[in-house]
Amino acid sequence: MRLTFSLILTLISSVTFSQQKISGFFPTNVSKQLEIEKQFDGYLNAKNQDTWLKFLSSRPHHVGSVQGKANADYMANLFRQWGYETELATYNVLFPTPKTRQLELLGPNPYKAKLQETALKEDQTSGQLSEQLPTYNAFSADGDVTAELVFVNWGVPADYELLEKMGISVKGKIVIAKYGGSWRGIKPKVAAEHGAIGCLIYSDPREDGYFQGDVYPVGPFRPEQSVQRGSVMDMPVYPGDPTTPFVASTADAKRLKREEVTTIMKIPVLPISYEDALPLLKSLKGPVVPESWRGSLPITYHAGPSESKVHLKLAFNWDYKPIYNVIATMKGSTYPDQWVIRGNHHDGWVNGASDPLSGMVAEMDEARAIAEMAKKGIRPKRTVVFCAWDGEEPSLLGSTEWVEDHADELKKKAVVYLNSDGNSRGFFGFGGSHALEKYVNEVAADVVDPQTGVSVLERRYARMLASAETSSKSKIYGNRYMKIGALGAGSDYSPFFQHLGIPSGNVGYGGEGNGGEYHSIYDSYDHFTRFKDPGLQYGVALAKTAGRLMLRMANADVLPFDYSILSGTINGYFAEIKALIDQSRMEVEVENKLIADKVYELAADPKEKLKLPVVKPAIPYLDFSPVENALSQLQKTTDLLKISITKADKLDESTLNKLNQLLYQAEQKLLDEKGLPRRPWYRHQIYAPGYYTGYGVKTLPGLREGIEEKNWNETKERIEVLAKALNRFDAALQEGLSILSK
Amino acid sequence: MRLTFSLILTLISSVTFSQQKISGFFPTNVSKQLEIEKQFDGYLNAKNQDTWLKFLSSRPHHVGSVQGKANADYMANLFRQWGYETELATYNVLFPTPKTRQLELLGPNPYKAKLQETALKEDQTSGQLSEQLPTYNAFSADGDVTAELVFVNWGVPADYELLEKMGISVKGKIVIAKYGGSWRGIKPKVAAEHGAIGCLIYSDPREDGYFQGDVYPVGPFRPEQSVQRGSVMDMPVYPGDPTTPFVASTADAKRLKREEVTTIMKIPVLPISYEDALPLLKSLKGPVVPESWRGSLPITYHAGPSESKVHLKLAFNWDYKPIYNVIATMKGSTYPDQWVIRGNHHDGWVNGASDPLSGMVAEMDEARAIAEMAKKGIRPKRTVVFCAWDGEEPSLLGSTEWVEDHADELKKKAVVYLNSDGNSRGFFGFGGSHALEKYVNEVAADVVDPQTGVSVLERRYARMLASAETSSKSKIYGNRYMKIGALGAGSDYSPFFQHLGIPSGNVGYGGEGNGGEYHSIYDSYDHFTRFKDPGLQYGVALAKTAGRLMLRMANADVLPFDYSILSGTINGYFAEIKALIDQSRMEVEVENKLIADKVYELAADPKEKLKLPVVKPAIPYLDFSPVENALSQLQKTTDLLKISITKADKLDESTLNKLNQLLYQAEQKLLDEKGLPRRPWYRHQIYAPGYYTGYGVKTLPGLREGIEEKNWNETKERIEVLAKALNRFDAALQEGLSILSK
Repeated sequence: MRLTFSLILTLISSVTFSQQKISGFFPTNVSKQLEIEKQFDGYLNAKNQDTWLKFLSSRPHHVGSVQGKANADYMANLFRQWGYETELATYNVLFPTPKTRQLELLGPNPYKAKLQETALKEDQTSGQLSEQLPTYNAFSADGDVTAELVFVNWGVPADYELLEKMGISVKGKIVIAKYGGSWRGIKPKVAAEHGAIGCLIYSDPREDGYFQGDVYPVGPFRPEQSVQRGSVMDMPVYPGDPTTPFVASTADAKRLKREEVTTIMKIPVLPISYEDALPLLKSLKGPVVPESWRGSLPITYHAGPSESKVHLKLAFNWDYKPIYNVIATMKGSTYPDQWVIRGNHHDGWVNGASDPLSGMVAEMDEARAIAEMAKKGIRPKRTVVFCAWDGEEPSLLGSTEWVEDHADELKKKAVVYLNSDGNSRGFFGFGGSHALEKYVNEVAADVVDPQTGVSVLERRYARMLASAETSSKSKIYGNRYMKIGALGAGSDYSPFFQHLGIPSGNVGYGGEGNGGEYHSIYDSYDHFTRFKDPGLQYGVALAKTAGRLMLRMANADVLPFDYSILSGTINGYFAEIKALIDQSRMEVEVENKLIADKVYELAADPKEKLKLPVVKPAIPYLDFSPVENALSQLQKTTDLLKISITKADKLDESTLNKLNQLLYQAEQKLLDEKGLPRRPWYRHQIYAPGYYTGYGVKTLPGLREGIEEKNWNETKERIEVLAKALNRFDAALQEGLSILSK
Repeated sequence: MRLTFSLILTLISSVTFSQQKISGFFPTNVSKQLEIEKQFDGYLNAKNQDTWLKFLSSRPHHVGSVQGKANADYMANLFRQWGYETELATYNVLFPTPKTRQLELLGPNPYKAKLQETALKEDQTSGQLSEQLPTYNAFSADGDVTAELVFVNWGVPADYELLEKMGISVKGKIVIAKYGGSWRGIKPKVAAEHGAIGCLIYSDPREDGYFQGDVYPVGPFRPEQSVQRGSVMDMPVYPGDPTTPFVASTADAKRLKREEVTTIMKIPVLPISYEDALPLLKSLKGPVVPESWRGSLPITYHAGPSESKVHLKLAFNWDYKPIYNVIATMKGSTYPDQWVIRGNHHDGWVNGASDPLSGMVAEMDEARAIAEMAKKGIRPKRTVVFCAWDGEEPSLLGSTEWVEDHADELKKKAVVYLNSDGNSRGFFGFGGSHALEKYVNEVAADVVDPQTGVSVLERRYARMLASAETSSKSKIYGNRYMKIGALGAGSDYSPFFQHLGIPSGNVGYGGEGNGGEYHSIYDSYDHFTRFKDPGLQYGVALAKTAGRLMLRMANADVLPFDYSILSGTINGYFAEIKALIDQSRMEVEVENKLIADKVYELAADPKEKLKLPVVKPAIPYLDFSPVENALSQLQKTTDLLKISITKADKLDESTLNKLNQLLYQAEQKLLDEKGLPRRPWYRHQIYAPGYYTGYGVKTLPGLREGIEEKNWNETKERIEVLAKALNRFDAALQEGLSILSK
C-alpha cells in the first residue's frame, strides 16, 4: 500500500511544474482556452454584482415570501435577457413557520424570553419586522413542555457520556446546548435519543459574539439579542421535502403523512440569544462543567438541573409553500448532452446578503459573461446550466426536489456540479470529489488575488505556511499544492454528489470576513459591504474562479478528472480508518487495565463523586482484505489511465465522446443502490455527512461509522459493500483504458 | 551521553523494587527507623493543628502587625514547652505600606476604583477592616501618573513582541496586566523596561474567579471585588531586605539608601479586582487582542490605548519594621553539628489560613511529635531545627536575613532544608535538589493517603496515569516513580538553596483544594476548613511526610543523597538546552526564508495592518564540549559512588562522619562565588528563578538565559563557568569515593 501511495505523491507534486499545460486540453487547444478565460474576466463587473446584491437583499426573502418570488423573477428575467433558456422550476414543499413561541423561566426569579432581534439605525433593512421570519428552528416539533433545564455543551454524543459520568440524566428535562461543535440539527436529535423533552440552542458570545470581537453595529459580531435561525430537520437521513423522499414534490407526488416522516424533530426546539440564555444558565445548579464546555458569559457554567423549571411552548403552521428554482440553460455548441452545472441558492433566512446572495451574484456575473461571449460567437462546447435554488435553508428543498425530478437525465448528462453558498474576503477554499483536485489547483494558480496580486493558490500556500507550527513549516515549504477538502452536507451539492454520484465541488473565498451575522436579521447589505467584501472584489474573484472551473469543464477535450488522485485519497482515508480501529483497540486494552488496577478510583477527587469508567468490550480484528485488494487494483488502473490520457494528444470525436462520458459517469459506480445503513438516500460510499455530525463529513462512511459505533457485524458488511463499489469503479475505468488503447 | 543516560534510567527504575530497604540506613538499622516513624505518626494530631490554625489566623498577621508578633510568641512558647531551645531571631527590615491609593478613569464615563474587599457574614474574620492591610503591591514605587491605558496580557516579554507587531507602544502609558502567566513582579518590571509609567494588575475571572467555579461564599473562587495582594520587589535579582543585600538586617548593618536599591519597582503598581478592572478594560480601543490573551469578562478585549486617560496615585510609608523568626532547636544525640532544618513562614497578607498557616501547623505537629519521642529517649541523631519565618510575603525577609546572618555556620552544618508553604487536600508534590529524589520517593511510598488508603506515591501515580493522554498511558503504566520538580523562587528555600547551595526541597499536598482566596481577606479559617482541607486530614499527611523526611535525614547512617540521579537530571537539562539552541537555529533559518519569500506579507490580512516579522540574525554553533566532558565524568563518578555506598553495609564512625559531611556539602560546589550575570546573589549554577519568569525555575540558568536572550558571548562564558562548577562538584565526590575505598 505504501509504495502505491508514494507513487501518488510523486504524481501530485509533479503538478506544480506543469502549469504551462492545463489538464483536459490537447496542447494545440491550450492557448485558445486561455484566451477565452482572459476575455471572460473582462466581462466581470463588481458594480453589477453590487446592484444585484442590493436588490436581492432589499427585503426578507425566505421560502414563501413575496420577495423570494420577486427575486426568482428578477433573476429569471436577467438570465433570459442574457440569452439563456430559463425556467422557474416550481415544487410544493412542506415549510413550517412559527405560530406560537413562548419561553420562560419559572420560580422565584422568573424571566420571560424576548425572542426578538432589535432593529438598528445603522442597518437599513433590520427594521422590516413585518416581513421577517421570527427566530425559530424549522422542523422543530410542536410542543408545550415544562421541566428542569440541563446544560449539554454542544449536545453531541460525547457530551452525554460526560454528563452520565457526572451522574446527570436529561430524561424528562429540557436541554440547553450551545451553537457550534456540530450541525445544529444534531443537538435536538441526540437530546431526544437521551429522553429530553425540549431543546434550546443559544449563541454563546464565545463563538460569534463579544469574545470574538466588537458586536454589531460597532463591529461585525453577534449582539446580545441576536439569534441564529436554522433548520433542525434530520438531514443526515435525507434532505429535501420530508414528505417526498426519493421523489420530487410535484403536484401529483405520493406523499408521506406528516406523522410518518422520521426526519422532523421529535421534540420542540428553539434557538435563543445570549441575552435570553443568561438567566436560564444562571439558574443551573449541579456540578461545574469541564473547562472546554464553558463559554464567555459572566457566570460559572453548571451542568444543572436548574433550580427552577423552564416552560417552552411552540406551535407551527405546517403549510405547503411553493418554491421557485431558476434554471438557465445554454446549449453546448459541440456536446449539448453533456451538462456543466453551476448553482447557488437564493433563499435567505432573512435578508441573506452574505448567505446566500454573495455567492449568487458571482454566479450571475459568470452567467452574464459567458452569455456576452456567446453573443460574439464564443459559446461553450458543452451545455452550461446556471441554477438559483430556492429553499436551501430549510433542507436543500429546491436542489433536492429538482435533482430527484431529473435524476435519470442527470445520471446520463451531468458532467460536474459546482456549488457556492456565500463568499467573503480572504482565501480560496474548495471541497469536493478528489477527482477534481488537480483541475482545481490549476485554476487556483491562474486566478489573481485582488488584495496581493499573486495567484490565489500562492496566497493560500502563504497562509498555510505562515500559520503552521514552526516545526512543520519546513515540510510545507515549496509545496504550492492544495489538498481539497471532502464534502459532508450543508449546501446544494448533496443531492448531486451523495445521492447521484455526480462529481461535485463547493467553491468560495473566506477567512477575512468573519462576523456573527449568520442567519440573523443582520446578514444585510449594510453588514456585508462594511465587513465581508467591501467593493465585492472577492465576488469578482469568485466569478473568475468558478467561471474558469465551468469553462475548462465545458470546453475540455478530455474531461480533467484525475482518478489517480481520488484513488490515492481513498487509500489515505482507508489508512486512517485502520489506524483508528488499531488505536481504539489499544485504548480499550489500556483503559480496561487501568480500571482493573483501580487507577481511576484512586485518582478521583472523592468529593466530586464522578462515576468511574467501566470495562469496555475488546475490539476485534477485522478482515479488511477485500478493500485492500480493491484499492490496490484501483490504484494501478487509475495510474495507468492517467498516463494513457496524458500521452493521448489527439483523439477522434467518437472516441472522445465515449471516453468523456465514461469519465464523468465513473464516480456513479461508487454508489451503492441500497445507500448507507439507516439512510438509503445517501448512496455515495466515499463521502457522506456524519450521522452524528451533520455538516461534518465522514469519509468511507459505512466503515467509519460502523467502527465508531462499535457495530462489528455492520462494519463487516460495509467492507464487502465498499469493496464491491471500488471494483465496479475500477471496471468502469478499465473500460476507459481499453477505449484509449484502441 | 545517551549510554550514560540509559544507565541512569535503569538505576532509577530499580528503585521501585527495593522498598524493603530505605536509603541511608545499614540493613541492621532499617527496622528500628521504621518503628520510630510508626511511633512518630501516633503523636500527630489533627485537632492540635486545628486549634493552632484557628488561633494563628484569628486576626491579620502581616509584618509589623500586633497579631504577627503575638503569633511568633505563641509558637515560641509552644516550642519551648515541648523542650526546644527557642529564640526569636529579630531583624529590622524595610516594609512599605500604603498611605495613598487612588485610581480613576477620567473622560466622559468616569469611574473611581473601590480598592476595597467586602466583609462577608459567612466569613468571621473578613470584617477586621482596621487591622487589614489595604489591597496593594509591596515595593511599588510612589507615583502620581495620568495616561492612556494599554492592555498587555500577562505582561511578559513575549506579550510586548506581539504588541509591537500590532504597532502599539506602552511608552508613557499605564499598562494593565492580568494576574497569572508569570510571577507578578515581572509585570511592572517588564512594563517599566518598555517605558510604561504605571502598572495595574487585575485578577481576571478566568484565572481564579467565576470561570473556574462558584465564587465565595457560595464556592471557593474569587468574588468580583476581591484583590490579590503581593510583593513586586525584583526578587529574581535578590530577595530579603532590599537595603541589605548579602548581609543580615541587624542593628549595625551597613545599609543601602532607598535610592540606591535596584530591586524596588521603578513605577507605581496597584493590584485591582475584576469589578474595578471592568470599566477600565471597556475603555480600551485599538485592535482586538489574540484569543489567548482574552479573559472571561463580558467584553471584547482590546489592546488599547484607552479612549480616556487613567489617573493612578500611590504613596507609601517607607518604614522599617521588626520581623520575628521563631527558631527552635533540638541538639542531635550523635551529630550535633549536622543540622536538619525545617521551615514554613508564619506571616500572611491578611489572615493567611491557607497561605502560610496550613503548612505551619503541620510543621508544629511534627516538632511536637519529635519532642514527645525525645522525652521518651528517642532523640534524633542529628540536630533538628524548626523555623517559623516572618516576612516571607514581602520578599522572603525572615529566611533571607537569618541565612545571611548565619551563612558561615550553615555552610558547615546544614545537611538539608525542607520547606513547606501551605497545604491542601489532594496529591503529594515535591520540588528541590534532585539528589533528594530517591529518598523522597521512598518516603512517599511509606505515607498513606487519608482519602484512599494507598500510599501517596501510588495515588500520585494513579492521577498521572488517569490524566495522561491515552496514547502515553501505556508508557507511564507500571512506573510508580515520581520525578521531582526543580525549584525557582517563591518561598523560603531560596536563600538556603540558591544562595548557599544547601540541598533543599519544598513539600506539600494540593490539587483538590482549589480556590480564589489567594492573598485576599478570604484566605481565612472559614474558607480553609470549608474548601481546602476539612478536618485537616492532609495537614496530618503533610506532617507524616515531612516528619519522615526529617527523621530519615536526622538518623541516617550514610546520608541518602543520590548524586547519580542529580547528575542524570543535569544531563537531561543540558540535552534540553542543546535541543533548544538547535531548534531556535532551525526556526530562525526557516523564518528568514519565509520573510524573504514574502510569505507573511501575502498571508496577512491587509486590513489588520500588522507589522511584518523582520529578518533575525542567524544563531551560531557554540562549543559545548567543556560541559559535555564535565558531565560525562560526573556521571561516571556519581554512578560509582552510588554503587560503593550501596555496597557499604557498615562503616566506622570517623569514616561515616567524614563521608556524610562531604555528601551534604557537595552541592555547595555547584555554586559560583560570583553568582549569575546581573544577579550575583544567586549562586547555584543548576537552579535559579528566571530573570523574566520569577517563580518559574530556569535550570542551568546561565546557559539557558544566555541562549534565550541571544547573548552569545555571555553564553560562552557561562559554558566555562558551568563546566568548572561541575568539575569542582565531581572532585568533591571523588573524595567521597576515596574515603569509601579506604
